[in-house]
Amino acid sequence: MSSWDQVTFSLSPRSKGCYLITKEVLEKVPQIKNYEVGIINLFIQHTSAGLTLNENCDPDVRTDMDAALDRIAPEGDHYIHADEGPDDMPGHVKSSTVGVSLSIPITNGKLNTGTWQGIWLCEFRNYKHTRRIVATINGKRK
Amino acid sequence: MSSWDQVTFSLSPRSKGCYLITKEVLEKVPQIKNYEVGIINLFIQHTSAGLTLNENCDPDVRTDMDAALDRIAPEGDHYIHADEGPDDMPGHVKSSTVGVSLSIPITNGKLNTGTWQGIWLCEFRNYKHTRRIVATINGKRK
Amino acid sequence: MSSWDQVTFSLSPRSKGCYLITKEVLEKVPQIKNYEVGIINLFIQHTSAGLTLNENCDPDVRTDMDAALDRIAPEGDHYIHADEGPDDMPGHVKSSTVGVSLSIPITNGKLNTGTWQGIWLCEFRNYKHTRRIVATINGKRK
Repeated sequence: MSSWDQVTFSLSPRSKGCYLITKEVLEKVPQIKNYEVGIINLFIQHTSAGLTLNENCDPDVRTDMDAALDRIAPEGDHYIHADEGPDDMPGHVKSSTVGVSLSIPITNGKLNTGTWQGIWLCEFRNYKHTRRIVATINGKRK
Repeated sequence: MSSWDQVTFSLSPRSKGCYLITKEVLEKVPQIKNYEVGIINLFIQHTSAGLTLNENCDPDVRTDMDAALDRIAPEGDHYIHADEGPDDMPGHVKSSTVGVSLSIPITNGKLNTGTWQGIWLCEFRNYKHTRRIVATINGKRK
Repeated sequence: MSSWDQVTFSLSPRSKGCYLITKEVLEKVPQIKNYEVGIINLFIQHTSAGLTLNENCDPDVRTDMDAALDRIAPEGDHYIHADEGPDDMPGHVKSSTVGVSLSIPITNGKLNTGTWQGIWLCEFRNYKHTRRIVATINGKRK
């Protein structure tokens, strides 16, 4: 038999860059520990930010990722949609490249991620934005 | 207790570009309104098209996205797989970049997307193709 | 009523490239055939590999994809995180571009993928690595 939990929460506002938010997510969704097996879907309700899983140790990886995404979707005068600032349209491209949701397995009350995996917020706008996440857990309770 | 609905449908054929299809999806999957909480998975059964969530307002964003994806995976004579036309292999690369499925939370009978988020079809082939989507809903009914 | 199955398995080790692993996955997760309708989530527990769906026929497409991802995230001296080799940081960027999980619909005991779709492992490190996948099935049993 399956149970459901759904929680909406805001992340603390951050300026452009990649951030490790595993701890922040786990604090907002303590219900994970009640599930023996299941899936948590994390969904960010924005179009110039993204969620991804990547390395959870060396902060330089996050700095390099931010720069690499700038090379993949550079600012420039080649966009039509330019009214919201030079960082806006590149942000939309990065958002569709990185994605806005994650589906992560739960096993014995914990995220069943690899040793080196952490949850990242990728913020693509220069100025700090408050980003909202809908977390939906579905699984079999302990 | 969880319920399931699964619907397969075709999108109206479109030539290369990015398209807002939220309304078309909602018309094909009216079952969404029966769920108090859940997840809808939209899965496009193709390898040179993609599904993404992005800005639902200014059509210029879709035009810019199509051009940005052309820069990320340009046509050219650097592909071995070239028999199906110059737009084919770039289409495969874009498909793996953007992705072919979306998992979107449902809350109180509605997609729980952000204010500015819409569902996009990204068509990567020049000529019009009819694309099939498998929509799978899992959740707790109202 | 929903059932759950969860299986963790290792793929046979491979060096850098894209590989069709549909058959390997189906052998590791025979439980798929027990489900009338559902979703399988495949989650790779690594940060320099990825999972994607793409063309299941011509091996040249996999060769071209590997080269295309090299153009999207090239090796070079522009990374700060360089201690683990020149292929490491590009691998992290590709992993967040391609993604580490897939959610695929199940219908009548089979993956409901398109005719030309196969499951790919994208290995981004030069040397062979053993990669672990967590497969989680949720659905209505037959």
